[in-house]
Amino acid sequence: MKKLTLLLLLSMANYISSGQVTGKKPNIIFFFVDDMGWQETSVPFHTEITHLNKRYHTPNMELLAAKGMKFTQAYACAVCSPSRISLMTGLNTMRHQVTNWTLRRDKSPDPEHPDLLPPKWNLNGMSAEPGIAHTVHAKTLPMFLQEAGYRTIHVGKAHFGATETPGEDPLNLGFDINIAGHAAGGPGSYYASNNFSAAFRDGDRIWDIPGLEKYHGTNIYLTEALTIEANQAMRQAVSDEVPFYLYVSHYAIHAPWEKDFRFYNKYKSMGLTDFQASYASMVESMDKSLGDIMQNVKLLGIESNTIIVFMSDNGQPKQADENLPLRGHKLQAYEGGVRVPLIVYWPGVTRSETHTDDYVIIEDIFPSFLEMAGIKSFQQIGGEIDGVSFLPMLQGQPGSQTDRPLYWHFPNTYDQPAYSSVRQGDWKLIYYHADRRLELFNIAEDIGEVNDRSQENMEVKDALAKILSNSLRETNAPMPIDKRSGKPVEYPDQL
Amino acid sequence: MKKLTLLLLLSMANYISSGQVTGKKPNIIFFFVDDMGWQETSVPFHTEITHLNKRYHTPNMELLAAKGMKFTQAYACAVCSPSRISLMTGLNTMRHQVTNWTLRRDKSPDPEHPDLLPPKWNLNGMSAEPGIAHTVHAKTLPMFLQEAGYRTIHVGKAHFGATETPGEDPLNLGFDINIAGHAAGGPGSYYASNNFSAAFRDGDRIWDIPGLEKYHGTNIYLTEALTIEANQAMRQAVSDEVPFYLYVSHYAIHAPWEKDFRFYNKYKSMGLTDFQASYASMVESMDKSLGDIMQNVKLLGIESNTIIVFMSDNGQPKQADENLPLRGHKLQAYEGGVRVPLIVYWPGVTRSETHTDDYVIIEDIFPSFLEMAGIKSFQQIGGEIDGVSFLPMLQGQPGSQTDRPLYWHFPNTYDQPAYSSVRQGDWKLIYYHADRRLELFNIAEDIGEVNDRSQENMEVKDALAKILSNSLRETNAPMPIDKRSGKPVEYPDQL
Repeated sequence: MKKLTLLLLLSMANYISSGQVTGKKPNIIFFFVDDMGWQETSVPFHTEITHLNKRYHTPNMELLAAKGMKFTQAYACAVCSPSRISLMTGLNTMRHQVTNWTLRRDKSPDPEHPDLLPPKWNLNGMSAEPGIAHTVHAKTLPMFLQEAGYRTIHVGKAHFGATETPGEDPLNLGFDINIAGHAAGGPGSYYASNNFSAAFRDGDRIWDIPGLEKYHGTNIYLTEALTIEANQAMRQAVSDEVPFYLYVSHYAIHAPWEKDFRFYNKYKSMGLTDFQASYASMVESMDKSLGDIMQNVKLLGIESNTIIVFMSDNGQPKQADENLPLRGHKLQAYEGGVRVPLIVYWPGVTRSETHTDDYVIIEDIFPSFLEMAGIKSFQQIGGEIDGVSFLPMLQGQPGSQTDRPLYWHFPNTYDQPAYSSVRQGDWKLIYYHADRRLELFNIAEDIGEVNDRSQENMEVKDALAKILSNSLRETNAPMPIDKRSGKPVEYPDQL
Repeated sequence: MKKLTLLLLLSMANYISSGQVTGKKPNIIFFFVDDMGWQETSVPFHTEITHLNKRYHTPNMELLAAKGMKFTQAYACAVCSPSRISLMTGLNTMRHQVTNWTLRRDKSPDPEHPDLLPPKWNLNGMSAEPGIAHTVHAKTLPMFLQEAGYRTIHVGKAHFGATETPGEDPLNLGFDINIAGHAAGGPGSYYASNNFSAAFRDGDRIWDIPGLEKYHGTNIYLTEALTIEANQAMRQAVSDEVPFYLYVSHYAIHAPWEKDFRFYNKYKSMGLTDFQASYASMVESMDKSLGDIMQNVKLLGIESNTIIVFMSDNGQPKQADENLPLRGHKLQAYEGGVRVPLIVYWPGVTRSETHTDDYVIIEDIFPSFLEMAGIKSFQQIGGEIDGVSFLPMLQGQPGSQTDRPLYWHFPNTYDQPAYSSVRQGDWKLIYYHADRRLELFNIAEDIGEVNDRSQENMEVKDALAKILSNSLRETNAPMPIDKRSGKPVEYPDQL
């Protein structure tokens, strides 16, 4: 990160405190993309420009990065519901225990496993009401923001709670307005000509996007329709002179991968396959949305008082064919599954074209946004949160968080082996539940996680196994059951 | 303009000289937009962000400006053919005498005028062959570049010479490759579904775009098709290891104003009229093309050795409804007709986010590009050129050109009164031929040209009248004939 001068630090302090004194709260826009990998952008988050950075074209992300601060080592959970619940609660996955994706009440997507029985995880997602079975009961980020005077606007994918539970509706989770959000984590179709429904391919109607009926039968693309609605809601909030939290949560670029014809031709003419070009067209379509939101902010004259944060909810899906130099994909513990783009633009606070290599993780958004909103103390149901505000990083205090352990926990059998993992400093330990196997990587030296160092670096391995085990114990994290013993899988320090 | 350090100046000098020593010529991309006004972009060229800057959304121009140098006082001629001939020859309008737009051999678009007979202007445009009636005979920019080893690629609107003259074909004017260029200055249709022809509305077939037959009947937009072709030609040049001059000369945003549906919805939802939204969609479509070109440059790994220059050929057309704070529109002598966006990005030479308030004009492109290409001396047919290289400005020598007079000359009757005009320093004098009227404006104080100072600042007026007259005399510029006297209209210093 570029050095900040004392003058700037002072001016930031003034800015923040004056905001609190005058009561002029900054607007906060969280632009949250689904299933977008760390490299599916022309903004390089790696130390060098990668092959994928050259393929994808996201000029508006480039502009946002040019205006603000880029986080090169930002993390999310490896799959969407866990990330979204961490965002909403400030809790990590071990604690909120929504460890896999949710959809139907009391139904888990986990298939039968030869050796493991599934753990008791919160398969109904989250709830702001107590007493809903298999949910984490928590007070949400938008609820705290509501109390601080914000209008809270939900646009796009919700995916917070299962059908037939209160958490399926964003209006039950602290949002004043809900545009197009419900239980499902993907759209039936991105095409308004298909009414955003999977009906055209005899797909399940559970994926039908609610609330966008006025676009049905037109030629508009889902990402564009959501953007127009988001900008309209923003316009209304400005007209009503109320600070707003705008959660632009795109369904893109989740399956189904339906090309956005507006952007497809270029990628096809570059020699990409139809799938690759379709995928890239969805990325650029998402980037256009970011640009349209940024333009609207300028148009409304609120740029100097509006924070824009860009992030993705997990790594790229395995269908997206390559991820080098990263290993792995969505759902996995490898960097390809959990490392995501993050850009923060806070006029008057962040400096242009800066970056930080410090670590942040999705649950950090919660306390960061509360601090941005001037909320100095808050109480989550059940006590402490796991997230840590990243505002000190914006304020030029590098190195403050690199010793903090970050945790992932996926005790499920969906798609790939169950695991728990921890990163602290340069090291990452992955513990595979089924075969009690440990992998140790030095991420700083080996971002591709090619060299398992667990045999040569026993001390590091043992130390991290202890840290990981203690966190699993402390949170009483759900572990799968060993079919033979009938007991939960051991913690890694018990091996 | 930000100050350049000595170190940078030295490194630039090294860069330029080393390029000449090693023979590694920079690629030059001239991205030239038709009829795009000074403010039809989200990049502010004025001292403040204008209403129109907020309406239009051009993120890729923002990126180019962030990387390079923005010229806040760049000029073109007030109409397209004169600008294009100045670009190709380095001559100003008085000298090349293609004073109005061209199309059909020996036919002028000028209507009958009550008091004036038309002058003898070069209504057939330009020719690289001698002896073609009513043309300026000149050696072209791409011809010089060809001699220096460049592959010269023409994409889009040519509009250099009338039908049935050699100049109608870019291949006769120094281009190795011509994609979609011919005599006409506008497309029959932007829609490939209309075969880029005006036939669908029974329009004249002279506007049919040549050479893009492979797109006919598809849903592609003309700007997109040209971009794909330009990128393919660039790819081929890189593959062939030859430096290239890529002239991306968009038909957009010239009439007919056919919406680009990819970008229309946003503008319509902003509350703009159908025309305004259509117009804005064409601007953003053009901007996407710039982004796609920039992406291709990165993809091909040639960014560090490729110069990208963005410019427009005249001010906005009068149909585009407002131009404040500027007065006037295309064809007129006011700033609204002649002031255009110009951005230059030369990696290793220009510094990021810089700007200059020095003056440049379209004929300056010619010597600037030749200097960029390492061509140290050249000889135009007929002697000297009028253009002056702007490379010193890139190299941080502000103020070097503000005392130089810039000239415009429109002795024609098409659309608005005939005039000649001159800007020197802060002042502009306009001489209207029909009524021998003079207007004098202080552009620095009065960019909107509201206050005619010709009565209060007689000395300035007389001095500029002398300068303007001398230039008209020296170039033997064609003047309209007064019907009553049968003689050419007097020079302004003869009043």
